[in-house]
Amino acid sequence: MGFTSVQKIRFDDVDGAGIVYYPQYFHLCHAAFEDFFDSAAPVSYPELVRDRRLGFPTVAIESTFSAPLVYGDVAVVELNVERMGNSSVVFAYQIRRKRDGVLCFRARVTTVLVSIDTMKPMTLDDEYRSLFERLLGTKK
Amino acid sequence: MGFTSVQKIRFDDVDGAGIVYYPQYFHLCHAAFEDFFDSAAPVSYPELVRDRRLGFPTVAIESTFSAPLVYGDVAVVELNVERMGNSSVVFAYQIRRKRDGVLCFRARVTTVLVSIDTMKPMTLDDEYRSLFERLLGTKK
Amino acid sequence: MGFTSVQKIRFDDVDGAGIVYYPQYFHLCHAAFEDFFDSAAPVSYPELVRDRRLGFPTVAIESTFSAPLVYGDVAVVELNVERMGNSSVVFAYQIRRKRDGVLCFRARVTTVLVSIDTMKPMTLDDEYRSLFERLLGTKK
Amino acid sequence: MGFTSVQKIRFDDVDGAGIVYYPQYFHLCHAAFEDFFDSAAPVSYPELVRDRRLGFPTVAIESTFSAPLVYGDVAVVELNVERMGNSSVVFAYQIRRKRDGVLCFRARVTTVLVSIDTMKPMTLDDEYRSLFERLLGTKK
Repeated sequence: MGFTSVQKIRFDDVDGAGIVYYPQYFHLCHAAFEDFFDSAAPVSYPELVRDRRLGFPTVAIESTFSAPLVYGDVAVVELNVERMGNSSVVFAYQIRRKRDGVLCFRARVTTVLVSIDTMKPMTLDDEYRSLFERLLGTKK
Repeated sequence: MGFTSVQKIRFDDVDGAGIVYYPQYFHLCHAAFEDFFDSAAPVSYPELVRDRRLGFPTVAIESTFSAPLVYGDVAVVELNVERMGNSSVVFAYQIRRKRDGVLCFRARVTTVLVSIDTMKPMTLDDEYRSLFERLLGTKK
Repeated sequence: MGFTSVQKIRFDDVDGAGIVYYPQYFHLCHAAFEDFFDSAAPVSYPELVRDRRLGFPTVAIESTFSAPLVYGDVAVVELNVERMGNSSVVFAYQIRRKRDGVLCFRARVTTVLVSIDTMKPMTLDDEYRSLFERLLGTKK
Repeated sequence: MGFTSVQKIRFDDVDGAGIVYYPQYFHLCHAAFEDFFDSAAPVSYPELVRDRRLGFPTVAIESTFSAPLVYGDVAVVELNVERMGNSSVVFAYQIRRKRDGVLCFRARVTTVLVSIDTMKPMTLDDEYRSLFERLLGTKK
């Protein structure tokens, strides 16, 4: 089991067709990513960005959308780590609707640790390796 | 006549009741404010913020919402200047629906010129006084 | 004491000057309003909108911004009711930074109960009067 | 050459690291998709959704992010059609920075024509086949 973040779908998350606007699924994933840092990392993601001037920008995404979320739904976002490279971390996200457990969305999001000032890749140190290892190999 | 910026209501601008989410009206105003800088100011608003480290944060708002905008509407945003102080500029915004000219929204938005690094007020110099004077006294 | 909702400032809540984008303060208020319904109302706000076809659109705002929120801040949003009319409810919001308790934002937001299908005002029934009375007269 | 939509990066499009928040790239793509309908389709996308109760929800995405956009950038979004099935249309998007022409983002976005009321796939009729054929085979 990976890390789980539960998030309400808000009044402004829907689009003109009455379902959650698809870019918003990635926002739900990023919020789960931040919540994971808050719960398990040596520093929060805001501190990582502001104080250490490091970040994990997204370099690639593969995703599938299988069922809609609507206003009033609660999204259960599960975060796992699929692979770690020298600088890269591949996260796997699943979003389910709380009301019926239906899988709505899956994504594989590749990120790279960079210096925010230079945007150059940095080597993942042991601190971050062990942080992400907790979520590795847990994907169903 | 003040400065006018015309903006499409986008697929994600609506809320769960099918009308434009009310905080989004202020976003339409800010976009018009940026467009005014692009069309008339010595530097664009991004340049002002990034290069000169100056900005016009909002310190007060009074606004009324009189008719809804829906997906597919085009918003006609009119920007005027109501008053200038030493550091402050009070902008007046009106948003009309293009399809029927109905007034949907009015706001009086008070901003203050500040240094972004210190957040302290700065005196409006002649360059900015003359920029905003073009929009002064033009409010209907 | 009114109703309090605690919300993390997210990675995308900031603007090009590095502080929370001012329209986003109203989004924080709306989220608190929804949380209040979730915690105390006979039906959630999504159910009110979808099933009963009722809503509380905003018709007027007065607000002041007194200190910035930044990425990593936690916003403590307090909601009170200032006044009730036949159809209208005036909410008072205060947003404080959790890290130091500083008041960042105050707003008086006037809403009107309407039928979403006709956008005509509806009379507040006893159910909603008693819901909002809990928050009445509690404003500091 | 496909369809091109030019869009300003706005004050709120950036994240806490000072670059465009990655979900926002998909929003730029959707805006280009809507602009294409406005410029070439028999009905606008809002009319398609509201009057005909049809839509093109996204079912899959593959994308890569190769360079950042910052506040003040202008995004040049190019839209092409890569493939059409019975109900599905695969769009290819490229986003370049106007200032230097650098490719920032590519995405292959698979959509399916559905009835909004049933969410069931519908067959693309000749009207929509010919609309999308204009953008087919034009991808560089």
